[in-house]
Amino acid sequence: MSKPLILITNDDGIHSPGLRKLIKIANTFGKVVVVAPDGPRSAQSHAITLETPIRCNRIVIDDGKQIEFSCSGTPVDCVKLALNKILDRNPDLCLSGINHGSNSSINVIYSGTVSAATEAAINEVPSIGFSLLDYSFNADFLEAEPFINRIITKVLKSKYSNNLCLNVNIPKSISNQLIKGIKVCNQANAKWVEQFEERLDPMGKRYFWLKGDFIVNDSSKNCDENLLKDHYITIVPVKYDMTSYKEIEDIQNIFKNE
Amino acid sequence: MSKPLILITNDDGIHSPGLRKLIKIANTFGKVVVVAPDGPRSAQSHAITLETPIRCNRIVIDDGKQIEFSCSGTPVDCVKLALNKILDRNPDLCLSGINHGSNSSINVIYSGTVSAATEAAINEVPSIGFSLLDYSFNADFLEAEPFINRIITKVLKSKYSNNLCLNVNIPKSISNQLIKGIKVCNQANAKWVEQFEERLDPMGKRYFWLKGDFIVNDSSKNCDENLLKDHYITIVPVKYDMTSYKEIEDIQNIFKNE
Repeated sequence: MSKPLILITNDDGIHSPGLRKLIKIANTFGKVVVVAPDGPRSAQSHAITLETPIRCNRIVIDDGKQIEFSCSGTPVDCVKLALNKILDRNPDLCLSGINHGSNSSINVIYSGTVSAATEAAINEVPSIGFSLLDYSFNADFLEAEPFINRIITKVLKSKYSNNLCLNVNIPKSISNQLIKGIKVCNQANAKWVEQFEERLDPMGKRYFWLKGDFIVNDSSKNCDENLLKDHYITIVPVKYDMTSYKEIEDIQNIFKNE
Repeated sequence: MSKPLILITNDDGIHSPGLRKLIKIANTFGKVVVVAPDGPRSAQSHAITLETPIRCNRIVIDDGKQIEFSCSGTPVDCVKLALNKILDRNPDLCLSGINHGSNSSINVIYSGTVSAATEAAINEVPSIGFSLLDYSFNADFLEAEPFINRIITKVLKSKYSNNLCLNVNIPKSISNQLIKGIKVCNQANAKWVEQFEERLDPMGKRYFWLKGDFIVNDSSKNCDENLLKDHYITIVPVKYDMTSYKEIEDIQNIFKNE
C-alpha cells in the first residue's frame, strides 16, 4: 500500500509546540504537507478571508521530512488553499492541532482547530481535530502521543467516510491519574458565561476585554465534558449540516398559513 | 402586554442599508437596541476576539427611536457584549441582518449573520437571521418587508423556545416573479469550490485572493436552495449541537478495543 498523503493545520500557528508534535507523529505515517497560520488564530471558528489577499509561502522550520507553508489567513483559509492551490490531489487525511486547550462541547463552534477539520470533511477529506486540555505553551504531549498514533491508525485503516470529521479531546497529563481509554460520545450541553472586563486606555477611553466562565449543564455520562473529567479521551463525530431536523415540523406549524 | 425588547446586529456593519431597514421594521414592534460591527465582518462565522480589546460606543446614525452601539468586534462579540454589558435583561428577540447576500445551505457555517443569531440562541434569546439574495449595496428590500414583519410577529407570538434560531433567506426581487410564500425546510447539500486567484503585488511577490463557485448537490424539493430558486422564502431552524449522532455507533465500532 502506498503511503498516505496527510495535510496538517492548526489555529495556534505554525510555530506552536502542539503542531510541531503532530507533524512528528504524522511523518511516521506518510507524506506530510503542512499549511498553517503564520501566527495565533484561536477562536477564529469557520471565518474565511474575503476582503484582503492571502499570503502563503514555503517555510522550513526543522529538519523533518514534511513540506511546510506559512499562511496569513485563518485555519479554514489554510485548508481551502491547500486543497485548491498547493496539493495536486485530495489528501487521504487532514489533521488539525494539537490545540493547546479544550475544544469540547460548545467550544466546537468557536474553535479554529475543529473548523479547519470540518472544512476538510466538507471537501471530502476525512479529518481529525486534536486538542489537549492544557493551555500552556509547554504542555506535555507525552501521554497523549500513543493515543494519537492509535486514532490516526484506526481512521486510516477504516476508510469509513470521506466526510468524516472527528473532534478529539485529550485530558491534561496529571501525575496521579493515567488516561483511562477512548470514548466516542456526544458534545455536552455547556456554554460560556461572559464577564467582559471594562478598562480605560492611557487616553482615558473605555475598552472591553472578553473573559468568561465555562458552565456545564449536562449530567449525562456520555457527553464529552463528563468523560474528560473522568480522564477519558473523547471523540465526537462532527457534522456541518446545522439544520435542527426535529424542530422542522414545529416551526412549520408556526408558519402554516404563510 | 409590554413591548418586547429587541436586540439587532449584523455582519455587514452598522451603516449597511440592510441593517437600517431591519431597525425600521423592528422599531414598530418594541424597544430596539442595536449592537453592530463598526464595519464589514462578512464570513467571520462564529469568531470571537480574545487577543485584543474590543471598543464599543454609543452612536446616533438617524432619528429613529432605537439605541445604537458601534463595536470593533465580530458579530458574535456584539451579541456577547450586548447580553453581558449593555442590556440589563435578556432581550425577547435577537434579529441579525438583513444580510446583503445569501446565507442558504453551507453558507450557514461561514456566515457572521447567522452565527450572531446562533450566539443569541445559545444564551436563551430566540433569534432570527435575515438574508436577502442580493449582494448589491442598493438591494431592494421592499418586497421582503411585509414577510419580515410577519415572521417577526409569528415568532414573538409563538414563544416557541428561547433556544430557537431561524435562518431566513429571501429571494432577490425580480420584475416578473412575486415571492410565492414561506417554506420551513432543511439546509441543502451544497459547497463552495474555490478558485484562488494568484497575483503578483507591486514588489513582485505572490498573493492569493479567494473566489469560488457554489455547487449544489441536492435534488430534494425540501432543501433551501431549491425552494429559493422556486422563489419561496426559506426558514431553516438551526442548532449548535454539531454532534453527528447517527455516526456515533459506527465510530464506536472503529474504536471498540480502545
